[in-house]
Amino acid sequence: MTATIHRLGRDQAPSLEPMMALVAEDMNSVNAVILDRMQSRIPLIPELAGHLIAGGGKRMRPMLTLASARLLDYSGTRHHKLSAAVEFIHTATLLHDDVVDGSGLRRGRKTANIIWGNSASVLVGDFLFSRSFELMVEDGSLKVLKILSNASAVIAEGEVNQLTAQRRIDTDEEQYLEIIGAKTAALFAAACRIAAVVAERDEKQEQALDAYGRNLGIAFQLVDDALDYESDGATMGKDAGDDFRDGKVTLPVILAYARGSADDRAFWKAAISGHRISDEDLTHATGLLRSTGAIADTLARARHYGQRAIDALGMFGNGKAKAALIEAVEFAIARAY
Amino acid sequence: MTATIHRLGRDQAPSLEPMMALVAEDMNSVNAVILDRMQSRIPLIPELAGHLIAGGGKRMRPMLTLASARLLDYSGTRHHKLSAAVEFIHTATLLHDDVVDGSGLRRGRKTANIIWGNSASVLVGDFLFSRSFELMVEDGSLKVLKILSNASAVIAEGEVNQLTAQRRIDTDEEQYLEIIGAKTAALFAAACRIAAVVAERDEKQEQALDAYGRNLGIAFQLVDDALDYESDGATMGKDAGDDFRDGKVTLPVILAYARGSADDRAFWKAAISGHRISDEDLTHATGLLRSTGAIADTLARARHYGQRAIDALGMFGNGKAKAALIEAVEFAIARAY
Repeated sequence: MTATIHRLGRDQAPSLEPMMALVAEDMNSVNAVILDRMQSRIPLIPELAGHLIAGGGKRMRPMLTLASARLLDYSGTRHHKLSAAVEFIHTATLLHDDVVDGSGLRRGRKTANIIWGNSASVLVGDFLFSRSFELMVEDGSLKVLKILSNASAVIAEGEVNQLTAQRRIDTDEEQYLEIIGAKTAALFAAACRIAAVVAERDEKQEQALDAYGRNLGIAFQLVDDALDYESDGATMGKDAGDDFRDGKVTLPVILAYARGSADDRAFWKAAISGHRISDEDLTHATGLLRSTGAIADTLARARHYGQRAIDALGMFGNGKAKAALIEAVEFAIARAY
Repeated sequence: MTATIHRLGRDQAPSLEPMMALVAEDMNSVNAVILDRMQSRIPLIPELAGHLIAGGGKRMRPMLTLASARLLDYSGTRHHKLSAAVEFIHTATLLHDDVVDGSGLRRGRKTANIIWGNSASVLVGDFLFSRSFELMVEDGSLKVLKILSNASAVIAEGEVNQLTAQRRIDTDEEQYLEIIGAKTAALFAAACRIAAVVAERDEKQEQALDAYGRNLGIAFQLVDDALDYESDGATMGKDAGDDFRDGKVTLPVILAYARGSADDRAFWKAAISGHRISDEDLTHATGLLRSTGAIADTLARARHYGQRAIDALGMFGNGKAKAALIEAVEFAIARAY
């Protein structure tokens, strides 16, 4: 038997298609649960939640639960409710994030806070968050409840950490990794891990799927943070340069600042503290990110985590599900090219 | 055996003291859990949470869990973690409420959103909410998880309902009762009910404690809404007339509007829609509330629910715990006199 070595990088553009095809039928069931459980006698709730939920998201996190369950040959239906719970946690987080960041554009559409106001976004987020726990309680696994309640606490902690780091140019790579590990990777990890719980696999396999999800989540966020400087609103579905104007210290900025001249550092300090946020400043910033190799190396870091995600799947047999999970990693990375 | 009839109304002023004394030792344990579990490596979290949690709240809801458990002669310690979970849900709600209402004063102190900003209040609220579920998961009762996750969803729904009704003078008493039943009474009911679950009592006793808590919660909110017009900032610990300025249609306004002259109605319409919110307008409003008997009848409604709360305890044996629970109802009502 020869070893199968999966490496990032291939000839044709990687795609999410194989994963979407793999779970298409399951995803229909998940969507039915989502639509059913976001209902309420208060019309504003489904209206606001539906705007975001129907608004062209990729359903990346529930898709990961479904694909992971498929990898483990799980043949039940418990993961449908739990995938919906995962998506509700994510949606609640997005609603609150957009309030916190004062964002106006997400997935190419006006954000809920712009249309219905901050108050409605906060409260409907709370509703979806509570609903997600109701779904988990209905499923009845304390292990799943533990994984997802812990992930939720970690996400909130990561968001507060990010808020604290905002406008602080002294944020370093370690703190940045801690932040994205919490605010993004924790839910990716939990989404994959719960598939092993419902499939009743051992701790080792739980950990492997957790590692896959966590590393993919970090790679995903690194690429997002690079794209924030490299893309435009139409491609990204949100305003380009948002992080720059919000004074968010992401890895591209950390690297460019660490590698920059005294003048460059003075510029970054002023920019991150909110004194250089014009379009010209953004253009200058993007120039510095390129000339210091900060964008390229942020993407190199993303490839590192992507490779770790792929290697975490080593114990699982090859097949369509594994191939789809691997290609999802490649897709997450390739978005940046 | 003669019947024991408990009625509202007594010679000396009712007090929370008996209930506080009854649960004092348990409350020390609950406070220890609260302090321990609001910690985080992110300093802003305990700082902000501590401001509100240490800020002189009566811990009414966890106190109800503890007193209800005492009523049932429960001798374990599971209710300590669960009482902390209940208080965390309440605290998260308060943090989000103050953001939604733009409040500046609570319990006589500056609100967290004024000190640390709306974003921090939203995110720390999310953290406490997640923490509350972690505590419940540690306890491990799916029944408790179901009661409290459902209460959380109902609370959020009630808050959205209230937001929708804001500035709408056509809100009626039925919708108002639905709102306060959700935003306030649901957690009072759940706090009492879970005591019956940990004490392993039957459905009948669960329902009785649920009814006690729910009716007390409604009475409590009715009195609060009356006090908003009758009290001053120092007594109430929040800004008097807040509801008036926020355009919240509470029962005093609903009654005064229904009973008012054409001129009165025109005034209320303008006021609730935000066009008459000066101090003189508030004085005029308070005058109308008195002359139409709206305040007095709001308090009469509160007494009705208070009496229902007391009668819901009928099946339980007399003793210190029951007396304390009854006096808590009398105290809730008497705050208004």
